[in-house]
Amino acid sequence: SSEILTLASSQRGMRVFDCRPESKQVTEQVVEATGKKLEGFLQDVSKAFSISGKETFVLTTTDRRVIDDNVFDELEDGITLQLLRSADQELPAATQEHIKYVPHYYTLVQSGMYEYYASEGQKSLPYAFAELVDNSLSATASKEGLRTIEIRLLFDESQGKHAAVVLDNGCGMTSKQLNNWAVYRLSKFNRDNSTIHSDHSGYVRPAPVPRSLNSDISFFGVGGKQAVFYIGQSARIITKPAASPDVHEFVMSKEDFERKEKNKEDIYCGVIRNRKPGDCAHIVVEEELFLQALIAEEEDKESFTAVVITGIQSEHITYLKQHFDLWTRELAHIYHYYVHGIHGNDMRQSAKNVQKESNVDIQISLVEKSGKQSRRVNLRNVDNDMQTLYINSTSASFEFRAQAHGEATVEGLIRYHPFLYDRETYPQDPYASPGPADEEDDECEVFNPVGRGKRPIFECFWNGRLIPYTTVAEFEWCACPKKAGSVPAECYNRISGVLFTNDCFPVSTNKLTFMDLELQLRDRETIFTRVINGQDQRVKIQREFTTWMKECHEQYDKQIKFMGFQGVTTRSDI
Amino acid sequence: SSEILTLASSQRGMRVFDCRPESKQVTEQVVEATGKKLEGFLQDVSKAFSISGKETFVLTTTDRRVIDDNVFDELEDGITLQLLRSADQELPAATQEHIKYVPHYYTLVQSGMYEYYASEGQKSLPYAFAELVDNSLSATASKEGLRTIEIRLLFDESQGKHAAVVLDNGCGMTSKQLNNWAVYRLSKFNRDNSTIHSDHSGYVRPAPVPRSLNSDISFFGVGGKQAVFYIGQSARIITKPAASPDVHEFVMSKEDFERKEKNKEDIYCGVIRNRKPGDCAHIVVEEELFLQALIAEEEDKESFTAVVITGIQSEHITYLKQHFDLWTRELAHIYHYYVHGIHGNDMRQSAKNVQKESNVDIQISLVEKSGKQSRRVNLRNVDNDMQTLYINSTSASFEFRAQAHGEATVEGLIRYHPFLYDRETYPQDPYASPGPADEEDDECEVFNPVGRGKRPIFECFWNGRLIPYTTVAEFEWCACPKKAGSVPAECYNRISGVLFTNDCFPVSTNKLTFMDLELQLRDRETIFTRVINGQDQRVKIQREFTTWMKECHEQYDKQIKFMGFQGVTTRSDI
Ligand SMILES: Nc1ncnc2c1ncn2[C@@H]1O[C@H](COP(=O)(O)OP(=O)(O)OP(=O)(O)O)[C@@H](O)[C@H]1O
Ligand SMILES: Nc1ncnc2c1ncn2[C@@H]1O[C@H](COP(=O)(O)OP(=O)(O)OP(=O)(O)O)[C@@H](O)[C@H]1O
Ligand SMILES: [Mg+2]
Ligand SMILES: [Mg+2]
Repeated sequence: SSEILTLASSQRGMRVFDCRPESKQVTEQVVEATGKKLEGFLQDVSKAFSISGKETFVLTTTDRRVIDDNVFDELEDGITLQLLRSADQELPAATQEHIKYVPHYYTLVQSGMYEYYASEGQKSLPYAFAELVDNSLSATASKEGLRTIEIRLLFDESQGKHAAVVLDNGCGMTSKQLNNWAVYRLSKFNRDNSTIHSDHSGYVRPAPVPRSLNSDISFFGVGGKQAVFYIGQSARIITKPAASPDVHEFVMSKEDFERKEKNKEDIYCGVIRNRKPGDCAHIVVEEELFLQALIAEEEDKESFTAVVITGIQSEHITYLKQHFDLWTRELAHIYHYYVHGIHGNDMRQSAKNVQKESNVDIQISLVEKSGKQSRRVNLRNVDNDMQTLYINSTSASFEFRAQAHGEATVEGLIRYHPFLYDRETYPQDPYASPGPADEEDDECEVFNPVGRGKRPIFECFWNGRLIPYTTVAEFEWCACPKKAGSVPAECYNRISGVLFTNDCFPVSTNKLTFMDLELQLRDRETIFTRVINGQDQRVKIQREFTTWMKECHEQYDKQIKFMGFQGVTTRSDI
Repeated sequence: SSEILTLASSQRGMRVFDCRPESKQVTEQVVEATGKKLEGFLQDVSKAFSISGKETFVLTTTDRRVIDDNVFDELEDGITLQLLRSADQELPAATQEHIKYVPHYYTLVQSGMYEYYASEGQKSLPYAFAELVDNSLSATASKEGLRTIEIRLLFDESQGKHAAVVLDNGCGMTSKQLNNWAVYRLSKFNRDNSTIHSDHSGYVRPAPVPRSLNSDISFFGVGGKQAVFYIGQSARIITKPAASPDVHEFVMSKEDFERKEKNKEDIYCGVIRNRKPGDCAHIVVEEELFLQALIAEEEDKESFTAVVITGIQSEHITYLKQHFDLWTRELAHIYHYYVHGIHGNDMRQSAKNVQKESNVDIQISLVEKSGKQSRRVNLRNVDNDMQTLYINSTSASFEFRAQAHGEATVEGLIRYHPFLYDRETYPQDPYASPGPADEEDDECEVFNPVGRGKRPIFECFWNGRLIPYTTVAEFEWCACPKKAGSVPAECYNRISGVLFTNDCFPVSTNKLTFMDLELQLRDRETIFTRVINGQDQRVKIQREFTTWMKECHEQYDKQIKFMGFQGVTTRSDI
């Protein structure tokens, strides 16, 4: 089947099938058409199939278009033609037509477009950046010192076109790995990492760690590509692996694809530039001035990867500037436990000493035109993401573990946010717009749940990273019982929760939703166990939970209750 | 860049770059390695770059692996090598490495896997079949007579392996179009339909029709591929276009891809079989017996397309058998207006005469092992899909139009389901499981909304076909006002609605969600207009709507109301 490929582009060979009714069997021959007119080509066909001068025949394409002078000139190399007695005769036997069906380049260019929208529209941009941060977390996973990940928005026009750079001090990529970066759907599960075949290294799942913070967040072989083409129209990857003295650089852009399509070149051929660190001889146009500064930084680095996105949609630029706090906070939410460590961002004095610092450092900066102050935030300093709010308004927590099939485990945590004097302490999302559901509740104001209300209890983290659109409402054992029990119903509105799953629970390719987490956890086979100080408790979880709730209520809720009603006294003295 | 391709697979040419520090500039030469040992190859390299016998040098790959005998034997054709003074010397100037990055075949094979799950898990299978029905609707769009679309589940083991066939009497495909079918992300917007370049036919959007029932439901160039590989592991497309005497047949399978990868063949090369109708000479194995019957049917047909899926996942087979009523009803819901015409399935006597029959006929059959009765349903006869239930419990409807930017229009309809004597007539989903939100309402039972409750008002159709996961809660003008008005609040729970959009409102590639419908409609620029008998009413829609609601309430609600309370009488006689 590689036959078609071996004909150079200037050559034209046609695969001609003899389909005349009297032919004993359908034979196939490649007839050369290079430099010929139809006349000459037909003579060659006659010769090839020993057709006598008296015999009439027609040549057609496989959609039965008769080959005349005009059609002939446009036929492409390798095309299949049928030699027939008449244009509408039936085929005595089947012909075999070789085709190619390489995916269209929209596979890459449009991949993110519809992935990140996913019906919620507005907040999608931070999730695209998250794919690049995911890759940087994976790449820095085995780093000993500080793992630095930077998102730099270079919106200063004096430095060239607008660019978004995601930069890390991770392991970098060899040129082979950089080549693999570009292959859509090639993932750690189905790739061969080496230039040399014999050292094919299969993927090994990392050992279990608390809360599955294993940095192993690369999965489908699509994230980086979807993200860059959702954000912009061109991606330049610049990378250096630790062992090598060379930097590797590769550009993939929509414009490039369009050019190759127009020129009928192979769409998925490209060039990696191998060069020494700091060498920016290839950066010549003013538009790319900002790259020189970036490349100059290379010389001090052992290894790194930079993803440089240009051609950024103007709506995105507006959004990134105007909602800087909002989207950086969303990233702080997604990576909360990577940035703050397994116990999260507990800012209360009591926690300050026990906390083990995380070595993940995620910085975001936005540089606008000179004169305007640039903005900079370290995700560690974000103090109003939802997890931070939950953690700092908790008075007690209840840990558990869920064991589904095989190695599929979930660590869970429920936090109690008490009622203090005159108000619920269950945190409210400072940026949330009141949903339609809340408004409709107006009619029965008195019964309106406070605290969490009807929102789901659990936010869900997959290999330590938030999957933002999936929440789990509750489990049977932690739901408010139908019949009034020893714990007042409103206490059940005072809990929030987190689930930490490993990657045995599949997520969608855009990492916005779990595929069936709730379904799997509701399965009767799934076993829930309370955990205290890391030890599984062999007791009924529902009873444990109810007891815990009762204690929380009694110990932490400071509710003013009017008791012992003795009648109405009219104060005529006021 | 097609240079790499032109070397036949038995040849080995290496692109060698002279990177020695003293070389004035980095020169590149292709050095032949075919049939050589390293020794000989190195001599040729010396010659090519005029290296004297005394000079020492090393050859490395671009990841700086030194070429020794073992490495040399494994080097692939076209690889880039660096000629260096020493293995760790820096590069005096950049080298250019040609790479290929054709998408991995998982692009096709895994495409549906995560697309159709989309967090809701269970019901995804009908949506995969819907992609194939979409294609059949598009293909039969300009058919004069009956447009027949059949889903046949052939689960009779005596006829070979399990198969699902989607069959239509549409326009069919030429072999070129069949080739295009296989190209991922090639859609009507970016393809060239002809074998011949000069008659490149651009896509023309169909003229507006009522409720956008234009059958133009092909959009992204992914649906068919995602669907077949979500359902099974192999797809055989058999098709005949009207003008041609030939049937074209193409098989794409996971097994095939795996084989080609193993053999290092081009992944996206395949063969189309062109043959006469009814010719099943190529069906020889017992496993494929059922294909003979299918092929035998071809002879009576002017044009058709059959998509035959095998390798169906066993969970899918179980689901398709056990929940036959459920998933066929879901399809009836999706295609409600295609199957029943623009007014939908109004079964009441009054409607019987005015109704114009639709010519879309969608049949589903399930054949199990001989002896067991096969099942068959025509979607036209499904009478319990939600739209049928809504339509048949309506006493009045309110039509409107929404005009967003440009050509983006929405036709809308609100239906009133009155209270009759002792109950709400707002229809309940017969298959719905009570959600957690409903249960939690227990506390304030008295105020519990009946009828629609807090569910969204609108189901949404895109080019006439349901987009199942997107609903629109309400618009300002049809929401229950905060302050009690002339219409009792509970009446607002008695309305259901439908939105019919054209394709100016983008949907996700799996056609499960709109990307930003609600956002666009909530835009201040969007203008809502009431429509009566097809005429736009130039009046404030909110006032119109409130008046209509009031009329509905007064005319259709038959509520027993206890009025004129006169005191309590104790019936001591009981
Ligand atoms: N910052 C980086 N440093 C080192 N290697 C990287 C980096 N980013 C990407 N890569 C490599 O490129 C590959 C492709 O990345 P991409 O995000 O497209 O897919 P993925 O991470 O494998 O899977 P997913 O679809 O889950 O993101 C990665 O698997 C990784 O090997
Ligand atoms: N039943 C059919 N009859 C005729 N042509 C068909 C049929 N099914 C598919 N095709 C052709 O194959 C193409 C590819 O189909 P596919 O469903 O994969 O993508 P699409 O319909 O173009 O876009 P979408 O992703 O929206 O489904 C269609 O555009 C159409 O030209
Ligand atoms: Mg990734
Ligand atoms: Mg389609």
